[in-house]
Amino acid sequence: MALQARVLHEHLIGRQGSRRALNTPALIVDLDALERNIAAMAAFAGSAGIALRPHAKTHKCVEIARRQIAADAAGVCCAKLGEAEALADGGVEGLLITSPVVGAAGVERLCALAARSPGLMASVDHPDAVAALAATGAALTLLVDIDPGIHRTGVADGDAAVALARQIDAAPALSFGGVQFYCGSQQHIEDFEGRRGAIADRTAYLSAIIAQLESAGLPPRLITGGGTGSHAIDAELGVLNELQVGSYVFMDRQYAECDLTGESGAAFETGLFIDARVISASHAFMSTVDAGFKAFATEAGAPPIAGGAPAGSTYHFMGDEHGCIIPPTGAAPPKLGDIVTFAAPHCDPTVNLYEALHVVRGDTLVGIWEIEGRGRSA
Amino acid sequence: MALQARVLHEHLIGRQGSRRALNTPALIVDLDALERNIAAMAAFAGSAGIALRPHAKTHKCVEIARRQIAADAAGVCCAKLGEAEALADGGVEGLLITSPVVGAAGVERLCALAARSPGLMASVDHPDAVAALAATGAALTLLVDIDPGIHRTGVADGDAAVALARQIDAAPALSFGGVQFYCGSQQHIEDFEGRRGAIADRTAYLSAIIAQLESAGLPPRLITGGGTGSHAIDAELGVLNELQVGSYVFMDRQYAECDLTGESGAAFETGLFIDARVISASHAFMSTVDAGFKAFATEAGAPPIAGGAPAGSTYHFMGDEHGCIIPPTGAAPPKLGDIVTFAAPHCDPTVNLYEALHVVRGDTLVGIWEIEGRGRSA
Repeated sequence: MALQARVLHEHLIGRQGSRRALNTPALIVDLDALERNIAAMAAFAGSAGIALRPHAKTHKCVEIARRQIAADAAGVCCAKLGEAEALADGGVEGLLITSPVVGAAGVERLCALAARSPGLMASVDHPDAVAALAATGAALTLLVDIDPGIHRTGVADGDAAVALARQIDAAPALSFGGVQFYCGSQQHIEDFEGRRGAIADRTAYLSAIIAQLESAGLPPRLITGGGTGSHAIDAELGVLNELQVGSYVFMDRQYAECDLTGESGAAFETGLFIDARVISASHAFMSTVDAGFKAFATEAGAPPIAGGAPAGSTYHFMGDEHGCIIPPTGAAPPKLGDIVTFAAPHCDPTVNLYEALHVVRGDTLVGIWEIEGRGRSA
Repeated sequence: MALQARVLHEHLIGRQGSRRALNTPALIVDLDALERNIAAMAAFAGSAGIALRPHAKTHKCVEIARRQIAADAAGVCCAKLGEAEALADGGVEGLLITSPVVGAAGVERLCALAARSPGLMASVDHPDAVAALAATGAALTLLVDIDPGIHRTGVADGDAAVALARQIDAAPALSFGGVQFYCGSQQHIEDFEGRRGAIADRTAYLSAIIAQLESAGLPPRLITGGGTGSHAIDAELGVLNELQVGSYVFMDRQYAECDLTGESGAAFETGLFIDARVISASHAFMSTVDAGFKAFATEAGAPPIAGGAPAGSTYHFMGDEHGCIIPPTGAAPPKLGDIVTFAAPHCDPTVNLYEALHVVRGDTLVGIWEIEGRGRSA
């Protein structure tokens, strides 16, 4: 089935000012910002001597993965098997699946994907899951996922890490590729020094586990993890040798509120927007746009207004399909038909709501990129 | 492109117990509950002598719309033009678009849809929008949307309603079809009598506007509105002649916490579920499932656990892709590979995250229904 975005908007590509003619709500990527973000992170990693495997769970888009890899990334990370399959279908290589794959159907799909996807790696955190993968006889490279203390995924301690690495190493078709370590809850500590202290503490813990693995004769080749919030700190600490940065490519309100690089380092720009349209304007103190719970991720609060409304205006959710714009006292709300532009409150689950990115330079639509991994949570 | 759900799961249809073999997270509809819910609302409306036009923004699914219409619904409502186009493509007729369509591209699409979709109606709340539709010369039936005081959409008062109806009536190709009145914020008042009082107050306001329209020689043929939370009250009050009930078809936690019918009336069952799988189990006090912000609507809180974990267990979001299950003290968490079943916290935006419904009777997959309107917010 053709993408609705292509049916409706393909003819607008290249037309001056065509962004304003889009049907709304529309997910927008500012190509200049995206290109600068990709280049800035690549330059940072190059000068720091650390590899990049950007996390594709942020964008779920083959075209963006290709651009990241063209900028020297080793590949991309995927949160789920279905996301990896979607990117592999688009020709993206060097995939790392960062969540454990569990269950008979998943194991079968993972083996089939590994057979056709050069460089594929998967992470594991449980002996039963490793046993199930070993029993297939398929050639797989596995990383031991280590819980930094947030208890989401990962083995609980160094002994469990060594035992799992040994189990992988002992299985004829399996290969122990290294370790994964993602300090999720530390990424968004807004103050740089506070974040630095927390990451340094967790990295000391990781170093101790790496030493245990080395003592057991299982030195990890790959030490992958980190994120946009910690990339400068991770590079400085020098324990990770690969960064799984995701959000830098778009930025969002959550990361915009963080000081990402302390005294120095790369700067990233907001490049992901949602354009909505005023569809009801019956009151002098507010107007209503066509974007609500189905147009924005909701767990990170209201989206910041980036344009199209008087400075100081705020957005408030009004259910599944609508939100209101309230201007500051004395200012008029946007008028019927006006476009209001929002930044994403949280980019990853916002992108997941859309089938395509509308790619703009300035106010001109220059491309439509399918979000091939949309909804591929299974 | 083939639906991933069909590629992965078509072979499981009809196999005893096949629900447990699904790749997860999977959106599940209990067909017995769905059938009973559709039949119960149809019986209620039949005996109350009120028409039904169920709101398809809840399910966005052609097959469910067909079943609602087969149970004597006049058609279905759609929140957005794109949703209406998707259902029309599936042969669904009697569509009512409940949000104003604004902007040149939308106006053009609406006219094209009206030309191929028998019985199509659209709602309006602004003279500029009516003027834009009138200028096309297309034959359209329009409803005047009346704001009940929640300020989402709708004209602000009776004078504005009369003026808009007159404007429609005066345009050669436009037809004034009636009024729409949706008391959104009153739907979820948990106490029946409290809700009844609020709806009765708003309905008195509606009655006054209807009297104004009648005095102006513009009696509304259709008086449509209401929802699952108010259907019994609306029928009793006898002002609306058509109900836009949506959530009854699935139910969710928000409505399950409401007393829907007071002393008497139809009972509705939870019929929409999300099956997730334990993919990490490194700790004695919790385990992690493969469903997070991308698998559940998040604005209505955590999803209630419906099965697969000890009674009293709770779910907590752990980011985009994961959540944890915490059992009560003394109980063991679900084990690696176990399926945990959740009810939806809020059905509409949860359905919007998935490409398909996995239809089950008991634990057997009996069908896969595409969610044709997924993501069609534009």
